[in-house]
Parts: sequence; structure tokens; C-alpha cells
Amino acid sequence: MKIITISREFGSGGRELGKRLSDILGFDYYDREIIAAIAEAKGLDESYVEKALESGVSQRVPLTFHNSFSTIGMMQSAHISLLQEQTRVIEGIAKRGKDCVIVGRNADILLAEQKPFTIFVCASMEAKIKRCQERAREGEQLTEKEIEQNIKRINKNRAQNYEMIAGRKWGQAASYNITVNTSEWDIKELTPAVAAFARRWFEHNAL
Amino acid sequence: MKIITISREFGSGGRELGKRLSDILGFDYYDREIIAAIAEAKGLDESYVEKALESGVSQRVPLTFHNSFSTIGMMQSAHISLLQEQTRVIEGIAKRGKDCVIVGRNADILLAEQKPFTIFVCASMEAKIKRCQERAREGEQLTEKEIEQNIKRINKNRAQNYEMIAGRKWGQAASYNITVNTSEWDIKELTPAVAAFARRWFEHNAL
Repeated sequence: MKIITISREFGSGGRELGKRLSDILGFDYYDREIIAAIAEAKGLDESYVEKALESGVSQRVPLTFHNSFSTIGMMQSAHISLLQEQTRVIEGIAKRGKDCVIVGRNADILLAEQKPFTIFVCASMEAKIKRCQERAREGEQLTEKEIEQNIKRINKNRAQNYEMIAGRKWGQAASYNITVNTSEWDIKELTPAVAAFARRWFEHNAL
Repeated sequence: MKIITISREFGSGGRELGKRLSDILGFDYYDREIIAAIAEAKGLDESYVEKALESGVSQRVPLTFHNSFSTIGMMQSAHISLLQEQTRVIEGIAKRGKDCVIVGRNADILLAEQKPFTIFVCASMEAKIKRCQERAREGEQLTEKEIEQNIKRINKNRAQNYEMIAGRKWGQAASYNITVNTSEWDIKELTPAVAAFARRWFEHNAL
């Protein structure tokens, strides 16, 4: 079984890269499906699950005097329960034994034993802002500064969640097989190069 | 003209990757040739030039009371003169207009205008130590700890030299087109994947 995991900075085009990779390689693709499965198992709303999992530790537990320690404890245990369900869902995907691409969700850590080909996708802040502007829905009128703040906030949360699970810093090149900077690429043009790299990896590391 | 620059952690196999890449792609290859050209222009010994350029700022200028400020000044100006010659040599390589691979020497920064395909090569400390042990000459009997200290010292120096020239941190993924972790690769098996990536880059970014 061949697994590719994609960790990515918000705005880097990592999700598009993952989707296109799965198309080129004929692999299954998992992204929002994981959120949907967690939501179903927990009887929760998908968008709630997504927000809860993406939000970082500090923002989830604002330490004002309105929060008693028991409230904090309840919030933390709810989050841990979501993380546990996420682990179950991702392990379930691996158990199916089918080649797949998994975007986000720290799947690189959760499935380390399956020896996935691990990709980190990054870009310059300028490129990330541009990408966010291009994919903004009509009517979404954020300023460049607001977009940059969003990008920083979401990536900070992703870093915190990763560090909590992996015990090391997010996005360090030595933690992934390859780190791709999408700043000067059209994702469609980049994907075949990444696919060739992944194929080579599996030739030499297939389980 | 197509230029590939390789920045690499000591022990990561970046030099071997560069050599093999140039063979596969039929590009000229520059590594020690640059040191030799600087040494010749300055009338200095090659190994002196190499050591002087690789040593970091802090080690080059040990601040003990034996050093007067004028001594420090002389050492600094000698180093700056070497850096200037290095810039001239590397710009001279680019002026030849032939496709090439350049290993080290901050060529990615010096030739930024030529839009090189920039690669950073890293590896886990464990893998770097192993690689150093494998390529140690007979009679070289360093302990694992000594090898690790060497690796850290050299990489710290490379980081300092880069930061002095580039004004930003060394080895950050967003500063390169691709960052390759060689930990789980044989360089010979890895090279065609990197070559495919570079070819794709030049298809879309040839000057």
C-alpha cells in the first residue's frame, strides 16, 4: 500500500496539489471526508468539527477569569475526544489497504509506521495572499492585511496542533521527505514533478 | 541558460547529489573549481581559502584580549576580500551562459537574477553521522560524538555566512524551490527524481 501525506501552510495550494496528485497517480483522496467521518461518529456538525480541530490550543481555551478550571477541562477533553476519533478514522483509512493521498490532519505522524511519502507544502507570504485572493468567493471582501492575519492565525494553529501530537516543530524540512515551495508554480504544472518524485520513492520503499 | 544551485547541510549528501544531477542533465558542475579559482586570483592556498570561507564569523574573530581591534579589522577585511572574489568567480560562471550545477557558496543568492532552480538538501542528524562515517578516509578515527560536533560546527558556520549575505535564516524551506531530505535515500536512487523536478521547473521558467 502506498500512502502520500500532505502537510501544508494555509494558502500554499497544498490541497489542490493533493487532489491533482491523487488524480495523476490513481490514488484515493482524503481531505474533508475525514472531517465528515468524525462528525458522523460523534453526532456533531461538520463545520464545528473542522473549526474545533483546526483551532489551536491557546485560542480554544481563552484564559480569562470567566473560565473556571472545570470549563477548561471540559473543553480540553472534548478536543481530545475529537483527536482520538480523528486517529481512529485515519487508521481506518490505512486499514483499507488502498493507495491514497491524505491532506492535513497530521496523518504523517499518525501513519508513520506505514512509511508514507511525506510532503510539506509552503510558499512565500506574498504568494499565499495571492492564492487566497484568487480563490475567495464572490462577495468576500477581505483586505490584504486581513487575509495575511487569517493565514498567520490558521498556520499558527496548525503548528500548535502538530507540535502537541508530534512533539517537535511543524514544517521543519527534516521531518518530511520533500518540502515544496509553490511560490513560483502553477499547481497544475508542478504536480507531475511531485508525482514523479513520489513514484521513485515507492519504487524503493514500497512495503 | 539553466542554473541549479545546491545548498546543503554538511553530511546530507548534497555534493554527491549535485555531481550526479550534473551527470544526468549534462550540465557543467562547479564545486571545488570555485575555491581553486579564488585561490588562484588571490595567490593563496586552496585549503586556506576553503577553510576561511567555510568558517563562521564568530570563530574567525575570537574576541580575546590578545586581539586588538585592528587585528579583527584586518581579519574581517581579508574575509570580505575573499567573499568579493567568490562573487566575481560565480558571476563569471553565469556569464559563460552554459547550463550548470553549483554546489554551495551561496550561489542561490549571488545568482538570484538568473532565476536558478534552488535546492536545499538536509537530513536527520543520525543520517548525517552515518554518511560521514561511510565516507571517512581510512585512518580517520573520529568518535560518533566528534563527528556530530563537526557537523554542527560546520553547519553553524554555513548558516552564519548565509545569513550575513542573504539577511535571512539559512535552510528555511520558503527560500528554496525544493528541499530534499536524504535521510531515507541512496543518493543515486534519489537523483533521477530531483532531475525530473528540475526539468519541469526549466520547462516553465527558462530564461
